[in-house]
Amino acid sequence: MLGSMVSLYEVSPRDGLQNEAAVVPTEAKAELIGKLVAAGVRDIEVTSFVRARWIPQLSDAVELVAMLPKVEGVRYWGLVPNRVGLERALESGVRHVATFLSASETHNKKNVNRTLRESLAGIEEVIAVARDEGMVVRGYISTVFGCPYEGDVPVENTLRIAERLLAAGASRIALGDTTGMANPRQVREVLQRLFAAGIGPERVALHMHDTRGTALANVLAGYELGVRQFDGSVGGMGGCPYAPGASGNAASEDMVYTLEAMGVPTGVDLERLADAGLFAESVVGRELPGRYHQYWRGACARSVSARTA
Amino acid sequence: MLGSMVSLYEVSPRDGLQNEAAVVPTEAKAELIGKLVAAGVRDIEVTSFVRARWIPQLSDAVELVAMLPKVEGVRYWGLVPNRVGLERALESGVRHVATFLSASETHNKKNVNRTLRESLAGIEEVIAVARDEGMVVRGYISTVFGCPYEGDVPVENTLRIAERLLAAGASRIALGDTTGMANPRQVREVLQRLFAAGIGPERVALHMHDTRGTALANVLAGYELGVRQFDGSVGGMGGCPYAPGASGNAASEDMVYTLEAMGVPTGVDLERLADAGLFAESVVGRELPGRYHQYWRGACARSVSARTA
Repeated sequence: MLGSMVSLYEVSPRDGLQNEAAVVPTEAKAELIGKLVAAGVRDIEVTSFVRARWIPQLSDAVELVAMLPKVEGVRYWGLVPNRVGLERALESGVRHVATFLSASETHNKKNVNRTLRESLAGIEEVIAVARDEGMVVRGYISTVFGCPYEGDVPVENTLRIAERLLAAGASRIALGDTTGMANPRQVREVLQRLFAAGIGPERVALHMHDTRGTALANVLAGYELGVRQFDGSVGGMGGCPYAPGASGNAASEDMVYTLEAMGVPTGVDLERLADAGLFAESVVGRELPGRYHQYWRGACARSVSARTA
Repeated sequence: MLGSMVSLYEVSPRDGLQNEAAVVPTEAKAELIGKLVAAGVRDIEVTSFVRARWIPQLSDAVELVAMLPKVEGVRYWGLVPNRVGLERALESGVRHVATFLSASETHNKKNVNRTLRESLAGIEEVIAVARDEGMVVRGYISTVFGCPYEGDVPVENTLRIAERLLAAGASRIALGDTTGMANPRQVREVLQRLFAAGIGPERVALHMHDTRGTALANVLAGYELGVRQFDGSVGGMGGCPYAPGASGNAASEDMVYTLEAMGVPTGVDLERLADAGLFAESVVGRELPGRYHQYWRGACARSVSARTA
């Protein structure tokens, strides 16, 4: 049976920093990850093992992983686009990897320059090798709730891909609202279709974007149907650079605040998480958009001015 | 029986502009209101009949109302703090007025410098006179979901006040999350307590703030329990200046986008509403925080640059 406990899967070091103009020093990334761990976050996507020329912001993947402290119960995840990336991930020592493809042909092609059929075959091979090495694999499916090029995406696409990734050995599927088009009714419909096909809520995570302000409402819709893992980014940092109009991962602080206020334990200390968000903001050098984050920034500024007045 | 149709009660001309540093010309206010009407909004709180020295931004209340076109089915609401304000409202010709007090003693005292007991007696008198004049009266109760000074606010405070305002002749109660502390579980609990006491969903509106990113989730929780009127402000403009940390009314665009995407009709044209939000932003001269608003601003900028490239 599913408990009420929710786990936050924190993507700021990867999905956040990958989309920031600033190239952040490896030490600062390690410090951010350390603050997330100290706040109680147990799943952190720390980097991506893509070619450095694709995403220079994350070219220090192997060095970064080497700097991270081993902490009981903490899982560091690395994104791997292909076999070459998986080799680098293995070399780095991470034991948890995430693969990705799109539920929409056009978005997939623009994102990784492969057809869906090619991507699926490649990912199945990556999953098989990773499992042989004893790794745990997460499968992202993006544009589940809408594609910037194709519009509506049939839920059967998502179901077919999810079944193949799980059959190949992925432990969990993360459903991505890449362009922030989802609404709670649609979230319920997609989840119920997966559940009806035998993919239970324990095999699913939701990766929502707040482009149109809907991320938290969508997360709560998933929670009510039994989903217990949600992707978030402190300060709402990040998004998908390949999707026009997309911006803003679900803000981790907003989720933790709301779930805890509703009596749902997350294992995360909100104040420490919010402080990690302020640190992330100082590191990327631009104001981050998260709602709770902005509230917290204001509250801290008032507290400092009160102390120094 | 309640239909699924939702009505947006737009507060940007009053609750929005009242909290902006800029003093907006009366003509620009009338233009904003005209754009809201053209978008299909049917309830608009256009101004406040408070003393000019309290809120200079709204000192043109009577002149503004005189400029507004009469449109079949459109209701212009004016906020009235007391008997003097009601007299000005009558003079202006508005037929719909909103009164307000707080569910928390301390917040009420700081907001209007009266005890709750004094406020309630005064408002009952205002409602009685307004009803004698044939006006329709809305009763705001603020800090229903938490007080910046007292913390938790007993739901029995809200119930007692709501019963008195309705008994005095108010047609509807707007429950205010003044500091953005509410969560969907709490929204359900408060609503169910009111319903159990015989105050049905048709007598209730929700006035949520997005300080911590929860406004839309709270609105949807209310919708699921039968509430059909929600307060919003284009661009998320406004908030309560007397509540430390409070900022940002629920953004009208986020609500209309999400409800319509879920198949719930609002009668509002989202594109025209979003354009009204861009106009509001140009008028107040600062970037407004609404999520859909920001998405729309970006989409329009890209569209212009594509046309001029």
